[in-house]
Amino acid sequence: MVTSNDKKINSILSQTASQLSDASTFGNVCHEHQAGAPMPSTKKIGILVSKIREVIFPGYFGNTPLDPLVNQYYMGVYVDEIFEMLSEQILAGLCFGCADWKIEDRDVDSNHQFSRNIASQFVEYLPELRRLLSCDVEAAFLGDPAAHGRGEVIFCYPAIRAISSYRIAHKLVELQVPLIPRIISEMAHSETGIDINPEAQIGEYFTIDHGTGTVIGATCIIGKNVKLYQGVTLGAVSFPLDNDGNPIKGIPRHPIIEDDVIIYAQATILGRVTIGKGSVIGGNVWVTNDVAPNSKVVQLKVRSVSYKDGGGI
Amino acid sequence: MVTSNDKKINSILSQTASQLSDASTFGNVCHEHQAGAPMPSTKKIGILVSKIREVIFPGYFGNTPLDPLVNQYYMGVYVDEIFEMLSEQILAGLCFGCADWKIEDRDVDSNHQFSRNIASQFVEYLPELRRLLSCDVEAAFLGDPAAHGRGEVIFCYPAIRAISSYRIAHKLVELQVPLIPRIISEMAHSETGIDINPEAQIGEYFTIDHGTGTVIGATCIIGKNVKLYQGVTLGAVSFPLDNDGNPIKGIPRHPIIEDDVIIYAQATILGRVTIGKGSVIGGNVWVTNDVAPNSKVVQLKVRSVSYKDGGGI
Amino acid sequence: MVTSNDKKINSILSQTASQLSDASTFGNVCHEHQAGAPMPSTKKIGILVSKIREVIFPGYFGNTPLDPLVNQYYMGVYVDEIFEMLSEQILAGLCFGCADWKIEDRDVDSNHQFSRNIASQFVEYLPELRRLLSCDVEAAFLGDPAAHGRGEVIFCYPAIRAISSYRIAHKLVELQVPLIPRIISEMAHSETGIDINPEAQIGEYFTIDHGTGTVIGATCIIGKNVKLYQGVTLGAVSFPLDNDGNPIKGIPRHPIIEDDVIIYAQATILGRVTIGKGSVIGGNVWVTNDVAPNSKVVQLKVRSVSYKDGGGI
Amino acid sequence: MVTSNDKKINSILSQTASQLSDASTFGNVCHEHQAGAPMPSTKKIGILVSKIREVIFPGYFGNTPLDPLVNQYYMGVYVDEIFEMLSEQILAGLCFGCADWKIEDRDVDSNHQFSRNIASQFVEYLPELRRLLSCDVEAAFLGDPAAHGRGEVIFCYPAIRAISSYRIAHKLVELQVPLIPRIISEMAHSETGIDINPEAQIGEYFTIDHGTGTVIGATCIIGKNVKLYQGVTLGAVSFPLDNDGNPIKGIPRHPIIEDDVIIYAQATILGRVTIGKGSVIGGNVWVTNDVAPNSKVVQLKVRSVSYKDGGGI
Amino acid sequence: MVTSNDKKINSILSQTASQLSDASTFGNVCHEHQAGAPMPSTKKIGILVSKIREVIFPGYFGNTPLDPLVNQYYMGVYVDEIFEMLSEQILAGLCFGCADWKIEDRDVDSNHQFSRNIASQFVEYLPELRRLLSCDVEAAFLGDPAAHGRGEVIFCYPAIRAISSYRIAHKLVELQVPLIPRIISEMAHSETGIDINPEAQIGEYFTIDHGTGTVIGATCIIGKNVKLYQGVTLGAVSFPLDNDGNPIKGIPRHPIIEDDVIIYAQATILGRVTIGKGSVIGGNVWVTNDVAPNSKVVQLKVRSVSYKDGGGI
Amino acid sequence: MVTSNDKKINSILSQTASQLSDASTFGNVCHEHQAGAPMPSTKKIGILVSKIREVIFPGYFGNTPLDPLVNQYYMGVYVDEIFEMLSEQILAGLCFGCADWKIEDRDVDSNHQFSRNIASQFVEYLPELRRLLSCDVEAAFLGDPAAHGRGEVIFCYPAIRAISSYRIAHKLVELQVPLIPRIISEMAHSETGIDINPEAQIGEYFTIDHGTGTVIGATCIIGKNVKLYQGVTLGAVSFPLDNDGNPIKGIPRHPIIEDDVIIYAQATILGRVTIGKGSVIGGNVWVTNDVAPNSKVVQLKVRSVSYKDGGGI
Repeated sequence: MVTSNDKKINSILSQTASQLSDASTFGNVCHEHQAGAPMPSTKKIGILVSKIREVIFPGYFGNTPLDPLVNQYYMGVYVDEIFEMLSEQILAGLCFGCADWKIEDRDVDSNHQFSRNIASQFVEYLPELRRLLSCDVEAAFLGDPAAHGRGEVIFCYPAIRAISSYRIAHKLVELQVPLIPRIISEMAHSETGIDINPEAQIGEYFTIDHGTGTVIGATCIIGKNVKLYQGVTLGAVSFPLDNDGNPIKGIPRHPIIEDDVIIYAQATILGRVTIGKGSVIGGNVWVTNDVAPNSKVVQLKVRSVSYKDGGGI
Repeated sequence: MVTSNDKKINSILSQTASQLSDASTFGNVCHEHQAGAPMPSTKKIGILVSKIREVIFPGYFGNTPLDPLVNQYYMGVYVDEIFEMLSEQILAGLCFGCADWKIEDRDVDSNHQFSRNIASQFVEYLPELRRLLSCDVEAAFLGDPAAHGRGEVIFCYPAIRAISSYRIAHKLVELQVPLIPRIISEMAHSETGIDINPEAQIGEYFTIDHGTGTVIGATCIIGKNVKLYQGVTLGAVSFPLDNDGNPIKGIPRHPIIEDDVIIYAQATILGRVTIGKGSVIGGNVWVTNDVAPNSKVVQLKVRSVSYKDGGGI
Repeated sequence: MVTSNDKKINSILSQTASQLSDASTFGNVCHEHQAGAPMPSTKKIGILVSKIREVIFPGYFGNTPLDPLVNQYYMGVYVDEIFEMLSEQILAGLCFGCADWKIEDRDVDSNHQFSRNIASQFVEYLPELRRLLSCDVEAAFLGDPAAHGRGEVIFCYPAIRAISSYRIAHKLVELQVPLIPRIISEMAHSETGIDINPEAQIGEYFTIDHGTGTVIGATCIIGKNVKLYQGVTLGAVSFPLDNDGNPIKGIPRHPIIEDDVIIYAQATILGRVTIGKGSVIGGNVWVTNDVAPNSKVVQLKVRSVSYKDGGGI
Repeated sequence: MVTSNDKKINSILSQTASQLSDASTFGNVCHEHQAGAPMPSTKKIGILVSKIREVIFPGYFGNTPLDPLVNQYYMGVYVDEIFEMLSEQILAGLCFGCADWKIEDRDVDSNHQFSRNIASQFVEYLPELRRLLSCDVEAAFLGDPAAHGRGEVIFCYPAIRAISSYRIAHKLVELQVPLIPRIISEMAHSETGIDINPEAQIGEYFTIDHGTGTVIGATCIIGKNVKLYQGVTLGAVSFPLDNDGNPIKGIPRHPIIEDDVIIYAQATILGRVTIGKGSVIGGNVWVTNDVAPNSKVVQLKVRSVSYKDGGGI
Repeated sequence: MVTSNDKKINSILSQTASQLSDASTFGNVCHEHQAGAPMPSTKKIGILVSKIREVIFPGYFGNTPLDPLVNQYYMGVYVDEIFEMLSEQILAGLCFGCADWKIEDRDVDSNHQFSRNIASQFVEYLPELRRLLSCDVEAAFLGDPAAHGRGEVIFCYPAIRAISSYRIAHKLVELQVPLIPRIISEMAHSETGIDINPEAQIGEYFTIDHGTGTVIGATCIIGKNVKLYQGVTLGAVSFPLDNDGNPIKGIPRHPIIEDDVIIYAQATILGRVTIGKGSVIGGNVWVTNDVAPNSKVVQLKVRSVSYKDGGGI
Repeated sequence: MVTSNDKKINSILSQTASQLSDASTFGNVCHEHQAGAPMPSTKKIGILVSKIREVIFPGYFGNTPLDPLVNQYYMGVYVDEIFEMLSEQILAGLCFGCADWKIEDRDVDSNHQFSRNIASQFVEYLPELRRLLSCDVEAAFLGDPAAHGRGEVIFCYPAIRAISSYRIAHKLVELQVPLIPRIISEMAHSETGIDINPEAQIGEYFTIDHGTGTVIGATCIIGKNVKLYQGVTLGAVSFPLDNDGNPIKGIPRHPIIEDDVIIYAQATILGRVTIGKGSVIGGNVWVTNDVAPNSKVVQLKVRSVSYKDGGGI
């Protein structure tokens, strides 16, 4: 039996559906995709990144046999799968947001061909990616007395997960792929708490310990052999607006970190400042000026006072 | 063949099972649900939140077609599904913890009817929710020079994910739904590292950049056009205990942030203090006092010392 | 029709596959598992941890009926399933990295028997684990005025998730299980942003509020009734290298936190320092020295300056 | 761009949706379920039947360990799971079709209690069910020279699958459960091609070889030690109509097969005839009369003619 | 350690892979799909057929609410989903086998548009499909004394499943869709054992009892109110070959069954013969000639002989 | 609140669990697997058979690209996967039932090596399997005027599914693998209604039209170019018992069908009879004697009688 309350509820549902499908309320929260093209899929991008890690670190993930005769078949298939999945997602990215990325607006067929060419260039980069990540693993292992071995670092460490996603995403930025690099870096951000903008430039032997809360901005330039701890921010301090009040894009606004620098937990370094080669930045500091090479920067001494009440501070 | 070692292991298993099913050890770690009602399901709540996002941002998530004639059917179905799923979870929440939330303890049938009424009120709120989140998207886009477009913000930014979950959960708090709002906010917390208590009050055009580690306490009041960075804490500093030694609930103990405030990374603001309109709080500071409107608060200068040994600080 | 562009792409794929399956490029990024043994499975470890939580907190997770007659059957099955899953993963861990963990290298059959014995010892520990976690729940509930009840704490709080994973992983460390404890703690780290090294020693009635970004290092010793907030680091400041330039393992290098200490958000405490009983450490401080019992340590006063330009600081 | 063809298609979709949701076209193809009760679920019933087979044949299906100490826990849990799943499905059946089955129409709560009582009676029957199916396995093994062992019979033979489903369903018929028995027998029918009406009565040591196309009608009575082959029909030949032209239900209209009878492939036996004890019915015959005990019935001789044209007969 | 046996096995694998990828062995077992188009998906076609049944029989399958206000939204979405899924599969069918079906070979874009037009025509047919199946349900219910109600017939009976798949597939044949109709009918064949060629023509009020093994050939014409039993074959007896020795397609070669005919189990009727209106064909007969209206055809009497030896016949 | 009825139910559950775990009731329905070995998995065997079909029919199933450069990688991986899956299942079969199959009882390690050797021999057979199935496809296409093309036959026809499963299973029989061949053939039986014992011997260019209910016994010998229709039984008529009353295994007891024979629907041919080359057996006949070459065998003429009453025969 349908009660009067049920009728009232059904009427609410019906009115709300009408309001929500009224196109005049769509405003800036509605997206019209280029017809005939897939939407980007975070699920497929997750599988893609896993497959790349499987290729880079043979024997750690998935079921790749190591026997050379058989291994070549697996590598051949994985490379083809990476190529196909990546082509599809690049196409999806192009059809999502060419205008926003100032990319030439082509039809779906041209975008399709363009995507395949870019994907093949990414595939060609995989051996170099393995070499780079091999250096990062070495840096993480040597920099952490708690690591029992390189295997543990590769299998467990969030830093390796975040850095491998960054290096994948950064290469895609260099190949001028829109949107997909950001999706890859945000997936790693969600999983590890490490937020590396894929446009940042980072040298070899890079590592991050623990990593939760670390942020590396889009115009950062980081040298070789740099180590960050959790909660480090390499951010921007302010940015000029254009005549329409919109922030001007692309202006260098994040720090330059030279080679051999260590930055401890929760340090915040803002603006286009340079942290000189070999410097050490202590935890919890707020730095908005250049730091000379081989400097050591720490917080002023804390106040220690006698303790009184039970619950607070 | 069963070895003596196998026998010993089986005996350990059996004894442990006995101990674990001994009700005298259940203490405060055992939950007896109101019979005839479902338990809350994080999996279903996750689907519910995704469905709401699909309705709010048409074309971005899921498969909603945008043609008006067809779109209305999808909106009708989504709204009905949201209503049904939400009714079920509200009921589950009521049966989980009426006592803890000081809610009248009804039988399952009354709770069922009550849940449906509340769920319909939530559904009625969806168009306003779209308007509010549209403002938040605008704030995120304008506040971040790294954003290529509003589409990227909606599709990728953890802030939008956290704030949409907050606004959903907060509405449910206003409708006096127990437990479920907290589950929703903890799911967003796990995914984004942003921890917004659903009881907090937050104005329009709110945004959080990067966001990992940001905490907003239950009695916070935040004005319009406020921007936070990662690692910002708006927390409590101490709290009075009642005669039984339990913390007294509901006392205002978190900051008030007035309109147009920016708070940089890792700043910690504790207690019922007011940060005046238009102020800027620098990173890594520890604030336990009121800040006048249009102030700028930054950390004292760091010590910069010459650098010596290789590994430390 | 195969175009010349297709041919070029296929040729790139083929060359890349060759390079990637060239064993000379495997270097330190390739893992050869002990034949005849499974690889550790993060998916199965996730199920294992969920099952343990189901046993510890009856009625909260899964479908355990509470009727004593029936409950004993469920406990019996869960205990057997935990035993079998854990045996398998311990075996996987042994075959992954005996050398790295300085564990005697046995054949698969011996490792199999060894794994079963260790797994049975873990199972025997489950009742004590319930008691310990019951204390942690109590601490979390009493320490948070925003908690509506113990049920909410158990069902939603990331701290309970992280601490229960820590206590499971730490017991496995005590039983000398390699790799698996770290996998368990990194899974909790990813989910909660709380990074507790499973080798750390932590007393009863421990809690962490909010928790994102909190780090507890491997050689930490934490007393009873300690409370941490989000972003707290208990870390190392430097570490000696051996003659090969590798960090020396196992040296005490993280803080000792005595009973009844509270440490506020974003505080960074580094090195083998002792924070005396009953002390309170304020937020955002950087501590590298001992703190006497019953001390209160806070940041120096911030600078408050008049505010000028619109976008920055 | 929306073309005029797209508009035409959208208009067709919209008109069709209207027609299909016009309740005047629902007629006899629409079902209104008793509110507050679940619909029967073929998926859940499939799991239920698998679980029962797991209990009946320990060690063949699922993961039941055979060690007595541990086995009892698994049996306890399985029995409880069977009880809960079956209660739910019985309830669903009651709410689906009480009127059709001439069952008293109760409210959902009464049906709920009634379902639990019936489910417990079914559970009580499980040991007897094991004994009966053990006899059927013996009959199948001894009756088939192609069988390598009893294990192969239990693990592979469709007859055992069909007969176990029949014996489960028949017990539920005896307990006056509507609909669910038919769902169980149709699932076995789909899987094996053997269609045994759950209302039929079948004695011990029953077997069917190959089985595809075998049909056993609702009012059949089959003695002990009977063997059927594929394509055997034990059917009805005609049935009287009531004054409304509907077939009169419940009249005995299918054969009685006495003990020790064998019926070969594709034989069709129709009507309330009796096939006497120890008889053998040859393949492809059409029998509509009683057959005396110890008879042998075969088809009249075939015509053998000389062969002419290439493609036909 | 790699043994010589391992090496031999790897060498076998490698040689076999070479042979299997040698295109000269592909012959007639290799399929090259039209580029840029999906392959037909039996999984998606299964979902499509389920969705159509959900629309035809509201309240029986899936979760369609029956309230008129809400029901229209569901019907709108289902109709759109059916349209999209069907368009995709029709396109897949066109790209699979235009040549084989003598269909004009267009490019993918033209096929895409063509598919959408056909799919919309199918959607338009859904209300008539509901009417037809409603008649079939009535026939099945009235023709079976074992049926407790129409609900049981719709929910459980394989005949309804097979006939609804047939009527869907037949409409697609009329709309000249290649391949997909056959996939639909073979899925029903696998599930029910009933094999109805989608090209057959079948009138209203059609039913099949039990049905396993029933076969209805491509050029059959069946009138109104016809009932078949299990194992009935309406087949071809021979067929002329063309000059290349291939069977000539499309020649009428299966029976015509006029209105009001009943055909009992295992009867085999072959060739372009006509079974006259109102006739009854008994079980297990072999008919290759016309049967006059209102005839009754039965097998010659069986031989009944005295029974001797224990095991055989 | 626990009612007295609840208590009674719990008591029934508990008593039943006790009875079911009483090993004295296990009898012939309990299986004790060889420790350390997997149980056969119908799910994995299903995947294995699908993978083999993917290799045999490139481009029809799965995602194998046909470009030769890339195709070789896929074939390499598929062959390796088939090898690994098959090894595991052969091992499972050996550990399930060596005694029943009169196979030497080895330890698990020896069985493991043995399984790998057999699996590699099966892999070596794949190219020949492709050739054989290519002939069967040709026979099915040429023998069915309703077939639109070879692609339709491969993609849809149950006969190809059943025959390919038979040819796989038969090769495993030749390689003396226990149990697994029967599982493969019963899976095809369930799906298609065609029951071919894997021990039967069947020549080239074999086809079955429609197929539901067709049975081919274990000692059948079938020549080249034979065609069967649905419901054909090639069975045994009786079999001698040994001194213990068990049927004697392995005696030839099923028909020999020589080259170029056609057998129509529902024909039943029993015993070690020979159907001579080029003969045609009509439908619905019962044959227990030899048939000379080039014979045509049909049923005696049916009785045609005048029709009287409305419902029956």
